Amino acid sequence: MLDARIIKVLQGIVGKQYVSTEKADLICYSYDATQRQFLPDVVVHPGNTEEVSLIMKMANAERVPVFPRGAGSGFTGGSLPTEGGIVLAMTRLDRILQIDEDNLVATVEPGVVTEQFQKAVEKVGLFYPPDPASLKFSTLGGNVAECAGGPRCVKYGVTKDFILGLEVVTPTGDIIRTGGATMKGVVGYDLTKLMCGSEGTLAIITKIIIKLLPLPEAKKTMLVLFDSIDGAAQAVSDIIRGKIIPTTLEFMDGATIDCVRQATDLELPEQAQAVLIIEVDGDADVISKQAARIAEIVQPLGVVETRIAETAEESEALWQVRRSVSASLRKVNPDKFNEDICVPRSKVPEMIRKVEAISQKHQVSIVNFGHAGDGNIHVNVMIDSKIPGQQKRADAAIEDIFKGALELGGTMSGEHGVGVMKAPYVRMELSGGAIAYMKTIKRALDPNNILNTGKIFLEDQAAGLS
Amino acid sequence: MLDARIIKVLQGIVGKQYVSTEKADLICYSYDATQRQFLPDVVVHPGNTEEVSLIMKMANAERVPVFPRGAGSGFTGGSLPTEGGIVLAMTRLDRILQIDEDNLVATVEPGVVTEQFQKAVEKVGLFYPPDPASLKFSTLGGNVAECAGGPRCVKYGVTKDFILGLEVVTPTGDIIRTGGATMKGVVGYDLTKLMCGSEGTLAIITKIIIKLLPLPEAKKTMLVLFDSIDGAAQAVSDIIRGKIIPTTLEFMDGATIDCVRQATDLELPEQAQAVLIIEVDGDADVISKQAARIAEIVQPLGVVETRIAETAEESEALWQVRRSVSASLRKVNPDKFNEDICVPRSKVPEMIRKVEAISQKHQVSIVNFGHAGDGNIHVNVMIDSKIPGQQKRADAAIEDIFKGALELGGTMSGEHGVGVMKAPYVRMELSGGAIAYMKTIKRALDPNNILNTGKIFLEDQAAGLS
Repeated sequence: MLDARIIKVLQGIVGKQYVSTEKADLICYSYDATQRQFLPDVVVHPGNTEEVSLIMKMANAERVPVFPRGAGSGFTGGSLPTEGGIVLAMTRLDRILQIDEDNLVATVEPGVVTEQFQKAVEKVGLFYPPDPASLKFSTLGGNVAECAGGPRCVKYGVTKDFILGLEVVTPTGDIIRTGGATMKGVVGYDLTKLMCGSEGTLAIITKIIIKLLPLPEAKKTMLVLFDSIDGAAQAVSDIIRGKIIPTTLEFMDGATIDCVRQATDLELPEQAQAVLIIEVDGDADVISKQAARIAEIVQPLGVVETRIAETAEESEALWQVRRSVSASLRKVNPDKFNEDICVPRSKVPEMIRKVEAISQKHQVSIVNFGHAGDGNIHVNVMIDSKIPGQQKRADAAIEDIFKGALELGGTMSGEHGVGVMKAPYVRMELSGGAIAYMKTIKRALDPNNILNTGKIFLEDQAAGLS
Repeated sequence: MLDARIIKVLQGIVGKQYVSTEKADLICYSYDATQRQFLPDVVVHPGNTEEVSLIMKMANAERVPVFPRGAGSGFTGGSLPTEGGIVLAMTRLDRILQIDEDNLVATVEPGVVTEQFQKAVEKVGLFYPPDPASLKFSTLGGNVAECAGGPRCVKYGVTKDFILGLEVVTPTGDIIRTGGATMKGVVGYDLTKLMCGSEGTLAIITKIIIKLLPLPEAKKTMLVLFDSIDGAAQAVSDIIRGKIIPTTLEFMDGATIDCVRQATDLELPEQAQAVLIIEVDGDADVISKQAARIAEIVQPLGVVETRIAETAEESEALWQVRRSVSASLRKVNPDKFNEDICVPRSKVPEMIRKVEAISQKHQVSIVNFGHAGDGNIHVNVMIDSKIPGQQKRADAAIEDIFKGALELGGTMSGEHGVGVMKAPYVRMELSGGAIAYMKTIKRALDPNNILNTGKIFLEDQAAGLS
């Protein structure tokens, strides 16, 4: 429990109405998409950068832990208030400050919802590609903190590739600007990219300068059903080897298709053991050529059916298959653990085979779908945790999945981050030296270890290089 | 002077033939493209990562400064051995270890020359876009350390955008791997991007994992001569506003054209007061459309002549105009100071006007050329430093140029870095808080301040956050 004096100071900084210690409010800010729960002592809604700075100065002096939070849509617990203290809800900072059409640059506050930003820039013919599945409610601040991905990252890159600069508040309360609105800039260390994906552990984001692209003239969506997962995986490799980088290259395995079939009335033929949803965008003529070439490349690989959308509505209908996955899986299985491993693209078939073996070894059902184009597979371990022994088997399977991804030169997380969920496994991926280097940075910048503690690194974060 | 004991240890690590204290060798490694000179005590040529690690462990224990060096082609003194000690010449590590055509990824050692790497990947239909002017001799390790740019960065981004992972040796001698060969990865802090552009102050690069693209099918080059600089600058804005992002959008002002005219026999009509060299690449049909659209956009802006290359030879001839600039300037003026400010694209015309005013105020000749497409202007202050007073006037002009760029929301360096040359000006661009944050990182990771000291931050690097 926080001292009443500290609550008073917080009220003095942001105003009484933006500080709450009501149980109902605390519960609202106690969880994220992981369904893990940690109650904070207080929820604070700052209204501007200066207030964030004052809060951090106080928190640093008083050694109160602070947990910045966007929409709480993260999959690894990055925003969970693992040690009580202050939840800093950044959602009041939700203005799009500028969309600069001359320079293809926007400046926003961190609480702007991803999809609302995308719509705003598309209105003026511009384009912000990163598209995490949670884009209807996730915030840009959270996207930057976790370095969110999404289907379109195959062609366009992840969130970090679009972040030119930031305004942040450091753990000790300094307000600093990193990078800027220019396309290039090499004065000092690249703190902007260091912040991207640092999961709110190094500073609190209060402004974001974003690079935009011209909105592609047209796009073309195709859905290809394969009679085997091997055929689909081979298709991914062959398309890239054929020097086409589609906008999206999403895949679903047979078990995923089964779930969708059970949970929806979407028409998916029985022989289909895998699906690829391929979208290309750009010049209308070029994408027609590319779509034809892709159809040619995949044809010998056991294609059951190819559907090509001719209109925006038809495209939407094809995407419906992919969009229904999460809800379908949840409908069919009580508990799922969605791990977003990433392997070199060409290793996707081998990884899928490894996952099949792991599923058999531990006797748990596993379904795979995700961003095959960049090797980022969402491996979903499906259990009913109320059945004795299932959780344990799932845990063992997850560890084997990470091991398998690492053996293929991959990573245990392509876009979800580490947070609290993957922290126990970080040592499998990073060497002791790399962890020491990172922790030395954390310790130096957050000497009292008050900012989003308990994330990424399990061990005492005060330890670092000797 | 280093103790003979230390030289012995170095010989023991890398072999006698790779350690030199000969005056002639020391002189060879005492300067870079800035023409500033600092003699090291010893030049060491390590042959592998383990040797680099042993050297750093010894140097850290003995408090000997170490200065990593690629080809010494930097424009800001990033590799200069400002405090004697050890020059670590990385040129023996010059192997291309792998070009993975399935995954569009390459792994190289830091001493590989940029152009040789580009040619190697182009042979298999792949593409590494960053193209610093020094690419015929600069090394990829140096390119990463400085985050090199080049004309093609308008469309494709800078060096850092292509670096997926690194192997580095820390100031204390640990060997760590950052990032990896996957397209996505968010486990731990992004040390890869932190290293890019950190000018060799945070670790020594020993391996580089590079993202490649499919080689564009075709390219089209056009050279447009304008009767005013305003017309050319407006053209840059209008092309981007027209939602075309060319591969290159290079410009030269009237004074640059004059120099080229004086120094070469290239045909450039008298009325031409500015030149744009515009290249587009991609699908052959698309780039034809784009070239036609660009010609249309620029036409009302005072075009004297438009030359479009129809063959590779004609393209080469057009580029000759741009490539002759540096030599021409040097032929016409004894001393030039090339500052690579970068402003938001739309501010290029205003920046050019500022530079004209600065030229008049300080009575120094200034010529501008460079990467207009991303607002990265090479502002060249031309003097004869042997004439009394000229150096002082040049210094005053340079400070005003930086000030002008910053007033327009720009930066004092788009691609050359800070090194020793711009270190005195860093406080104009970065706030005290930002510098403190960066220096805290440096101090934490290099506690004895032995790695490439005296770069970026002028003041005692041991100081940091209080």
